[in-house]
Amino acid sequence: MNGHTKFQAERVSRLNPYVPGEQPRDRDYIKLNANENPYPPSPAVLQAVLQTLRDNPMATARYPDPDSLDLKKAIASLLNRTGGVLARAVVAGGAVSPSPGDALGFEVTPEMIFCGNGSDEVLSFVFYAFFDGDRPLITLEHTYSFYPVYGLYYGIPLKAVPLTPRWQVDVSGVAEAAGAADSGVILPNPNAPTGIALSREEVRGLLRRCPPDRAVVIDEAYADFGGESCLGLLPEFPNLVIVRTFSKSLSGAGLRLGYAVASGELCRVLTQVKNSFNHFPLDALTQRAGIAACSDPAWYAANAAKIASERDSLAAFLRDRGWLVLPSSANFLFTQKPGHSGRALYGRLRDQGILVRRFDIPGIEDFLRITVGTAAQMAALKEALG
Amino acid sequence: MNGHTKFQAERVSRLNPYVPGEQPRDRDYIKLNANENPYPPSPAVLQAVLQTLRDNPMATARYPDPDSLDLKKAIASLLNRTGGVLARAVVAGGAVSPSPGDALGFEVTPEMIFCGNGSDEVLSFVFYAFFDGDRPLITLEHTYSFYPVYGLYYGIPLKAVPLTPRWQVDVSGVAEAAGAADSGVILPNPNAPTGIALSREEVRGLLRRCPPDRAVVIDEAYADFGGESCLGLLPEFPNLVIVRTFSKSLSGAGLRLGYAVASGELCRVLTQVKNSFNHFPLDALTQRAGIAACSDPAWYAANAAKIASERDSLAAFLRDRGWLVLPSSANFLFTQKPGHSGRALYGRLRDQGILVRRFDIPGIEDFLRITVGTAAQMAALKEALG
Repeated sequence: MNGHTKFQAERVSRLNPYVPGEQPRDRDYIKLNANENPYPPSPAVLQAVLQTLRDNPMATARYPDPDSLDLKKAIASLLNRTGGVLARAVVAGGAVSPSPGDALGFEVTPEMIFCGNGSDEVLSFVFYAFFDGDRPLITLEHTYSFYPVYGLYYGIPLKAVPLTPRWQVDVSGVAEAAGAADSGVILPNPNAPTGIALSREEVRGLLRRCPPDRAVVIDEAYADFGGESCLGLLPEFPNLVIVRTFSKSLSGAGLRLGYAVASGELCRVLTQVKNSFNHFPLDALTQRAGIAACSDPAWYAANAAKIASERDSLAAFLRDRGWLVLPSSANFLFTQKPGHSGRALYGRLRDQGILVRRFDIPGIEDFLRITVGTAAQMAALKEALG
Repeated sequence: MNGHTKFQAERVSRLNPYVPGEQPRDRDYIKLNANENPYPPSPAVLQAVLQTLRDNPMATARYPDPDSLDLKKAIASLLNRTGGVLARAVVAGGAVSPSPGDALGFEVTPEMIFCGNGSDEVLSFVFYAFFDGDRPLITLEHTYSFYPVYGLYYGIPLKAVPLTPRWQVDVSGVAEAAGAADSGVILPNPNAPTGIALSREEVRGLLRRCPPDRAVVIDEAYADFGGESCLGLLPEFPNLVIVRTFSKSLSGAGLRLGYAVASGELCRVLTQVKNSFNHFPLDALTQRAGIAACSDPAWYAANAAKIASERDSLAAFLRDRGWLVLPSSANFLFTQKPGHSGRALYGRLRDQGILVRRFDIPGIEDFLRITVGTAAQMAALKEALG
């Protein structure tokens, strides 16, 4: 699949692109392979885009706001209202407030938000902005497989710390590796593809043991489905960068919108990097859609709660049938049936019109990563597995 | 404006971000500072996005097609129908065909198209994909000022060849510099901010004299307003990369959509680079909008012809009043009034509610770059200058 030509720059030969969950065109699958949200965006989002097209079509002809200022305000307001975890938020009469343990205790301001074209682009800028090629960036062995891809893109070596035998993040191992190399750290919380989350207190403990002058990046793509957000740790750790996305809990994978939350100082550096690459990664309609999504957290909180509930039901169903299911705080399960080949299980589901994700990676080759869908999709999955 | 923190990577200190034309919030200016199209997109574009939102809102919740395949087909078809220059295209009964000199003589296929988030992102990938840090990339002295920004981002040195005393591209100077360093070349045609175009034959002559194993990039952002496109040279030069955008002639600056046209071999390398940075830079709505824009070239050809006509009228008006106006094939004029300070002229127009662009760069500091707008905007400008 990779190209090669005599015209290419030297650095191209080191690339090893990430392969996302496929978007098949051949058949109408029940699509549980890309951790997408099975529910559509809030009607407020559709309405906001429709209205922009009707009332201000020149918004598509003029350059958009390069700083996404209104969007940053909307995101900051969303985080302040929810504390950063939709599935645990308290929803009452259309209003949303953090569950007691999630209240931030400080105000997220727009200066603390950096927006990009999906959290993948934000992560790419984070790698460029904060990690050097002269020391390894510490990450996990089984984790988001785009991290090593960025490392190759920018010439940043990565050191992957193995998970514990129970598939948990080895907090001590990560802290020791970071300390030994005076390095930064990147990890998702909850981790992917395992779905297992660290508590905020565990992340605080990790941050206390990491080099204070190196960035520590917590990728909270899946935090809205029941884990704890580490947003509340920002005032304590000026080296903390939290990366989030509209693609999962906010039903926006097709809109391309992600963001980082960090000190204003770190966000200014990310902005400088972005403005050396492409000033306008967020188009006018995506900015409008994102603002509207932030205005209706109750819609997304209800969906996140439904997904968390379907997840727990599916986990119980699988465990009853002898599957090993890792304890997930995300919108997917990582699971295997002992004695069965992951490849065969994947193929059997695919034959029945259900697409899940499998990684051909030693150590996890017999696991399936199953995205949690609607109740109807989960019923179909259970029937296929029965 | 640039950030700095002890947490930043070494490479950040070499950055020098591009500054685009401002998008002011303080007042409703006549905006002639960012070379945007003054006309809205085709009704087909608005209709296509509206219909996607109504009929398939899940398109915003699912990941978009990472390969933009339908969009590539639409772009290829547009180029084959128009030959690549809208303002010169023959429009009859809603159908569009190339003017005789512009017919391509071969078929552009979807494999020859690479799409990105505006031509700025496409250019960024082109720099990464084709130019090394061990030799200078040849460009022009007064040209698109994002090129040196990419050079700093990726550590690629640039060598800028001066324009001739009449502000034209020094074709021999460029070829000699490229030959001397065994280097690639990047230049816009028409050039920006001068607006002066090379003919296709002049570019052919340049390509014949450049190292055949190094990429030559012709940035045709402004080609649709009357210049000649170099698309027809692609079969002859496997090292040729043509970069184009929906932001200018296709009224899509707010949509973020650009593309490269090159051999399938070069496009595969660009795809590999993109997939190591962000798989999905084009959201679902932008892809739909772009496809719809390609379906209505007559709309955009009529607008490009109007802009070319207003441009020529404004040029005559200015010359009549003693301004030096460079001969433009783009949607802007680069002009100065001998004996007058560019800064003062810029300020006087701004005070009258008209925003143009000025570069604080030695040699061109007394020029204004004026985007050509609607007839009404040009009338207001002429009155303000009178």
